[in-house]
Amino acid sequence: MEAQDLQQLTFALDTFYLLVCGALVMWMAAGFSMLEAGLVRAKNTTEILTKNIALYSIACITYLAIGYKVMYPDPSPAYAADANFFFQVVFVATAMSIVSGAVAERMKLMSFLVFCVVLSAFIYPVQGLWTWGGGMIANWGFVDFAGSSIVHLTGASAALAAVILLGPRSGKYLSDGSINALPGSNMPLAALGTFILWFGWFGFNGGSQLALGSVDDANAIARAMVNTNTSAAAGTIAALLFTKLLWKKADLTMILNGALAGLVAITAQPVTPEPWQASVFGFVAGLIVVLSIIALDKLHIDDPVGAISVHGVVGIFGTLLVPITDSSASFMIQFAGVATIFGWVFACSFIIWTILKLTVGIRVTKEQEYVGLDQVDCGVEAYPEFTSQK
Amino acid sequence: MEAQDLQQLTFALDTFYLLVCGALVMWMAAGFSMLEAGLVRAKNTTEILTKNIALYSIACITYLAIGYKVMYPDPSPAYAADANFFFQVVFVATAMSIVSGAVAERMKLMSFLVFCVVLSAFIYPVQGLWTWGGGMIANWGFVDFAGSSIVHLTGASAALAAVILLGPRSGKYLSDGSINALPGSNMPLAALGTFILWFGWFGFNGGSQLALGSVDDANAIARAMVNTNTSAAAGTIAALLFTKLLWKKADLTMILNGALAGLVAITAQPVTPEPWQASVFGFVAGLIVVLSIIALDKLHIDDPVGAISVHGVVGIFGTLLVPITDSSASFMIQFAGVATIFGWVFACSFIIWTILKLTVGIRVTKEQEYVGLDQVDCGVEAYPEFTSQK
Amino acid sequence: MEAQDLQQLTFALDTFYLLVCGALVMWMAAGFSMLEAGLVRAKNTTEILTKNIALYSIACITYLAIGYKVMYPDPSPAYAADANFFFQVVFVATAMSIVSGAVAERMKLMSFLVFCVVLSAFIYPVQGLWTWGGGMIANWGFVDFAGSSIVHLTGASAALAAVILLGPRSGKYLSDGSINALPGSNMPLAALGTFILWFGWFGFNGGSQLALGSVDDANAIARAMVNTNTSAAAGTIAALLFTKLLWKKADLTMILNGALAGLVAITAQPVTPEPWQASVFGFVAGLIVVLSIIALDKLHIDDPVGAISVHGVVGIFGTLLVPITDSSASFMIQFAGVATIFGWVFACSFIIWTILKLTVGIRVTKEQEYVGLDQVDCGVEAYPEFTSQK
Repeated sequence: MEAQDLQQLTFALDTFYLLVCGALVMWMAAGFSMLEAGLVRAKNTTEILTKNIALYSIACITYLAIGYKVMYPDPSPAYAADANFFFQVVFVATAMSIVSGAVAERMKLMSFLVFCVVLSAFIYPVQGLWTWGGGMIANWGFVDFAGSSIVHLTGASAALAAVILLGPRSGKYLSDGSINALPGSNMPLAALGTFILWFGWFGFNGGSQLALGSVDDANAIARAMVNTNTSAAAGTIAALLFTKLLWKKADLTMILNGALAGLVAITAQPVTPEPWQASVFGFVAGLIVVLSIIALDKLHIDDPVGAISVHGVVGIFGTLLVPITDSSASFMIQFAGVATIFGWVFACSFIIWTILKLTVGIRVTKEQEYVGLDQVDCGVEAYPEFTSQK
Repeated sequence: MEAQDLQQLTFALDTFYLLVCGALVMWMAAGFSMLEAGLVRAKNTTEILTKNIALYSIACITYLAIGYKVMYPDPSPAYAADANFFFQVVFVATAMSIVSGAVAERMKLMSFLVFCVVLSAFIYPVQGLWTWGGGMIANWGFVDFAGSSIVHLTGASAALAAVILLGPRSGKYLSDGSINALPGSNMPLAALGTFILWFGWFGFNGGSQLALGSVDDANAIARAMVNTNTSAAAGTIAALLFTKLLWKKADLTMILNGALAGLVAITAQPVTPEPWQASVFGFVAGLIVVLSIIALDKLHIDDPVGAISVHGVVGIFGTLLVPITDSSASFMIQFAGVATIFGWVFACSFIIWTILKLTVGIRVTKEQEYVGLDQVDCGVEAYPEFTSQK
Repeated sequence: MEAQDLQQLTFALDTFYLLVCGALVMWMAAGFSMLEAGLVRAKNTTEILTKNIALYSIACITYLAIGYKVMYPDPSPAYAADANFFFQVVFVATAMSIVSGAVAERMKLMSFLVFCVVLSAFIYPVQGLWTWGGGMIANWGFVDFAGSSIVHLTGASAALAAVILLGPRSGKYLSDGSINALPGSNMPLAALGTFILWFGWFGFNGGSQLALGSVDDANAIARAMVNTNTSAAAGTIAALLFTKLLWKKADLTMILNGALAGLVAITAQPVTPEPWQASVFGFVAGLIVVLSIIALDKLHIDDPVGAISVHGVVGIFGTLLVPITDSSASFMIQFAGVATIFGWVFACSFIIWTILKLTVGIRVTKEQEYVGLDQVDCGVEAYPEFTSQK
């Protein structure tokens, strides 16, 4: 009777822990929304907000109906089954949120939402089955604790396929080869979004231990949260110093991406590094993300929010870092896992986006792009009293 | 000694669970503030922010001094007594927050705050005594797990009484019978507010189990949170598809209200439905809220944020849904409970608003409405550098 | 084996409790950012956001590398060591956040960040060693449960030193002796920031019990959270009534500072007061903060967000309140503690700011101040499409 009570309490504590962490990850949907709303121009703001709340919703329903069963054919947690679903479903939404920023300001809303169904039902769950579901990549010995690749690279790979097929925004790359900055319309929103993501990430990485009720688990979770915070802080500082060095200015959009890069980099393995190692990893991630954003721009891959660099390039970097502190991982297997996930998601996404492009179309017209997606897709202006021109 | 330690730990866990959930519900006050600030015009934004932080504060102090004792004459929880108060007090504030949106852009600030005292001290606690306090409606067998009626319909009934006595905003309904849209000034704030409410609702519904420390309780809480999320997601999708069908546009304000409708609808009973049932309930709620907002507008009941539809119409809908999945509830008793709560709150509110109208007045002058409540009641503009006209 | 399991569970619960509270305190960094971004003019918004995310990051890394070891040479918690660090590190960042608001709109970004390193590595940890670290002030019998002085007064003292050396913003105090209001550019952000701080404060005060797993601890935490909420609510109402009385208007910026004053005042001892006492303390704090802000303005101490009044004047007030409800504290010792902390932090800060002033400089030029810090330090406008003039 005593022992049974203790088991009940452990079950309850583990359930509560996963629900709290899951709620924090749900809250990241608000973070992506604010980040993206801050980094697009005013005329595309309502649309990106609509896209974000819609993608979250579609991901939740689709994963409930189909994706979860694909990814975990036979889940058996030592806590409430619904808590397990809850913690998993918010991760799919995160992956899909990554896509929305990269395709901002020119993609048709409804085509995007159709893709969202396919990613949540099929593309994400299949690679999830191979990894967290205990499938082939897991069997190789691949380590990706909270999803630098399984979540973040997945989102970025789908985004890259879309951006290639979609092309850059009008006026971004000029005929003389120069790059035109299209500044985000609302920096406080972008900063708020980053803070929300940072806060929510404690649930993302902290929750991925999946159990709390022992000293070892509690220590692991605490370490994961300290390292998550430390890596983000170091990424922030790196981007600050680097942009100051490059351009004599502290470029806030780069600094926010530096913070996010720190978060993504530590996600594959936040438990085994010492905090000082986490700060080194985050610092390097903050440098990489700045270089990657510059490089993609030179390649005329137009990603308005830097999502491919933050979640893709740094997602790979983070996954490859694991063997440095985690002796159970090997560099070759990490590389193989990254390549497989990227190959699967990119190929599937490329096919789906291509089908959409050839049928309903994925890009609005030049005129529509000029007037802005808010009028075209939503009929509601984001700031009807603020902006002088439409 | 062992058993006593186990009891202490259960007490501690239950207390912590209620405090975390209560804090999330407090956070909903920020959600209502941002939602309403986004949906009013710029010239009334400071006032609605002032109203929201003031109503939360007044509700807290009044419920502490009077309301809590009215509603629970003899509370006896199996966790910290203060945690019980904390979780209850934030619910009163939620009910009162619902009112503020409906009366936006034309009500006198101080009259509103006087009403807030009466609602928190008396109107809400009396119906709360009849229901959660174990009074007459509870004895009938009425089921309202987290308050589709007890909180949300209560707020909406008080709002309806106010709106009837207050009349519509100037320029909303034109003499030729046409309806003039008065677009909200800041869509990112409205979206942020909705996300905050969604996040906070995990505490609202998840906390209403009031105990965590057993397998059954933990399973119930997890189910409540999954269903809350699922219903909101389905409501979002329903409003998206419906507005797209009606107007060829994805109307963000309707979509946000669809999400909120999904949240309100599942609140009366989030534990017994299967998740697929929650998605059906939420979907229907998302359709109902769009129809209700259109209908109220045709009736010239001017509710700038749609609060009466979201919390009142859908609150009733959610309460009547309970018997479908909960065999302990009956449709007739649910209906009787809804009618009693509505009748009580509407009648009391109508009397109080009438007294206020006949004494200090409840509506600003036409000139004051034209210049905006920010200048009239607050003396502080919300966006002094952004809007071209004052 | 049984007893060991129970100990493990207690360890896990305490760890989780501190991590959740620590995450909430981290979230306060977003609150300070939004509050300050809302209260400065549009042209200085990007810079203050940059400053906030950078100071948080620098505080985290510096305290990890140096400060934590200074403050707690030999920490020995009964929960995960990393959870202890996590909960402590976010407090340093809070102290530093207080400074950034007071020096807004005229300080050089890089000088500020250099000061941040010194405060996090040395100034804060040394007084922390004397108090929470078990040093001399603690040995006197000084009581400051969650840091009205140790955190808030520390931040305000550093801010005061800076503001004295920095001087007021151009155009704030006119040659005819009159005071020119420089209104904040975005009230919804300021309100959001306040709500975030209020929400996060539940972690700040609730977490400072540092243990959850017994009935007594759980009761103390619940009381702390109820009192925190109550004091903030009372501070809000006091500022509302007071400004209404003084100026016939409900001044939102004062009301927000009233809420924050309520939070700061209860922080030194949120456990021993009855809730009605907390409401009295908060109410008085709400009056004090309004008077203090007016008085500092008359003294030409220019603090754009009121941080010195909220965190300094009310921080002292809160610390001196402790003996009223806590028999273990004495007024004289509280006063001695306050004086020592203020003296130490102010003196050190004054020296550091002076060195910075004499070397790299702490203030931007008049021309730079005119065009705004966003262009000068960041090269990114906060609202490029909204403000008519630059």
